[in-house]
Amino acid sequence: MPERAARGRIAQRFRATVEYDGTEFAGFQVQPDARTVQGELEAALARLTGGSRQPVQGAGRTDAGVHAAGQVIAFTYPGALPVEALTDALNGMLPPDVALRDLRPVPAGFNPRYAARYREYRYTIWNGPRSPLRERATLWVRTSLDVAAMAEAAQAFEGRHDFASLASSGSSVKTTLRTVIRSEVVFDEGGLTYEVEADGFLRKMVRSMVGGLVAAGSGEREPAALAAALAAGDRRLWPPPAAACGLILVRVDYPD
Amino acid sequence: MPERAARGRIAQRFRATVEYDGTEFAGFQVQPDARTVQGELEAALARLTGGSRQPVQGAGRTDAGVHAAGQVIAFTYPGALPVEALTDALNGMLPPDVALRDLRPVPAGFNPRYAARYREYRYTIWNGPRSPLRERATLWVRTSLDVAAMAEAAQAFEGRHDFASLASSGSSVKTTLRTVIRSEVVFDEGGLTYEVEADGFLRKMVRSMVGGLVAAGSGEREPAALAAALAAGDRRLWPPPAAACGLILVRVDYPD
Repeated sequence: MPERAARGRIAQRFRATVEYDGTEFAGFQVQPDARTVQGELEAALARLTGGSRQPVQGAGRTDAGVHAAGQVIAFTYPGALPVEALTDALNGMLPPDVALRDLRPVPAGFNPRYAARYREYRYTIWNGPRSPLRERATLWVRTSLDVAAMAEAAQAFEGRHDFASLASSGSSVKTTLRTVIRSEVVFDEGGLTYEVEADGFLRKMVRSMVGGLVAAGSGEREPAALAAALAAGDRRLWPPPAAACGLILVRVDYPD
Repeated sequence: MPERAARGRIAQRFRATVEYDGTEFAGFQVQPDARTVQGELEAALARLTGGSRQPVQGAGRTDAGVHAAGQVIAFTYPGALPVEALTDALNGMLPPDVALRDLRPVPAGFNPRYAARYREYRYTIWNGPRSPLRERATLWVRTSLDVAAMAEAAQAFEGRHDFASLASSGSSVKTTLRTVIRSEVVFDEGGLTYEVEADGFLRKMVRSMVGGLVAAGSGEREPAALAAALAAGDRRLWPPPAAACGLILVRVDYPD
């Protein structure tokens, strides 16, 4: 539903899918004196409209170094460019490591974070010899990993659980209950991939999950001991989170 | 066959497979005041042996920005470390964008360039919306490409031909005749991949091949017109070479 903007033009709300290589970013969310994805998007939009900086909202606040193939954003655009020209104009002003696609109008109140139903993340581990071509988007684990133990540990995440033991310290959320609808380890020639889908994730939760999986795969922790640590709800019992570089936000799912 | 080194130790010749992300390199071959793969390998070896810089030979002189998953190198090592420790020591001293694997002793006269039987290159084209995660290792072509026309153009490279029309200007080689044993366009969700295998390649030959394929795919040139330009042997008739970033040296094959 179009709204009146300050300058008297019709302001339309849009959503878009955003892809980025997180290597050179301090994360999605705007921070003072840091290069962020949100910051680049807001700057491109402000340059395009020639107006004041408008907020760009994202579905997930990915951390520094985390990538996205399917981040979803929303913003209000007071200009008159049609969708295709607006996509091209914004992409033309974005740096090479961020791009926007599938731009489309949405109702004025659309918030990509609160409207999201599920989020899907993927984490890639390379368990072969050191591989520079995989350096930016995988975690290199040198010790041979037991994929069956990892699959067993991954299974334990499925369902509705209190994930307090996997939350980053200092995060203030109302509840640490989340529902994981898929948690799977896939092994092929491209490496070991962990795919997880949930109604929401706590801060550093996927990386903590992977920290647990690697501990199971390397034999440091029994899958049963990890299940007990998850149930205990004490994050000091959980292995440290895995590095950001292996993580990618694949998809955000919305009700029709 | 071990040889006596200057310092009186036994010097053994080794070969190794080398992988690199070519983005930050001025190419494989050493050049003054430029960061090169050969330069990094020679520096690591010199630091390890504490001796003077020994030459590292490569099978292919990849250009600036070209990647390798299976470059093959050879060097003479005067030290006493066993193969596994030598691999680890060298990898420990190499930067994150170069790594070495499959180190093994070879006869003293082994030259990875002259001993090679076939070389395999792969070039990846992304024909979808702009994709930052593919930025480093693919060529982005925005216009929709006709894969059938590209496949037809690729077929014409197979066999023994004079590739003078695809050679970079200023290169001085004895002959521009090369035998291409495989030249194939593969299309899947990861993009459009061109795979080519030959007994040797002229300077910028693969990128010129891809320049031709893209011209065929975009409709700028008929495959038959390209075949005629190849036969004419005049490089002014051939489309310009495609960007380096999409190219990777996949494998070098040696007689047993």
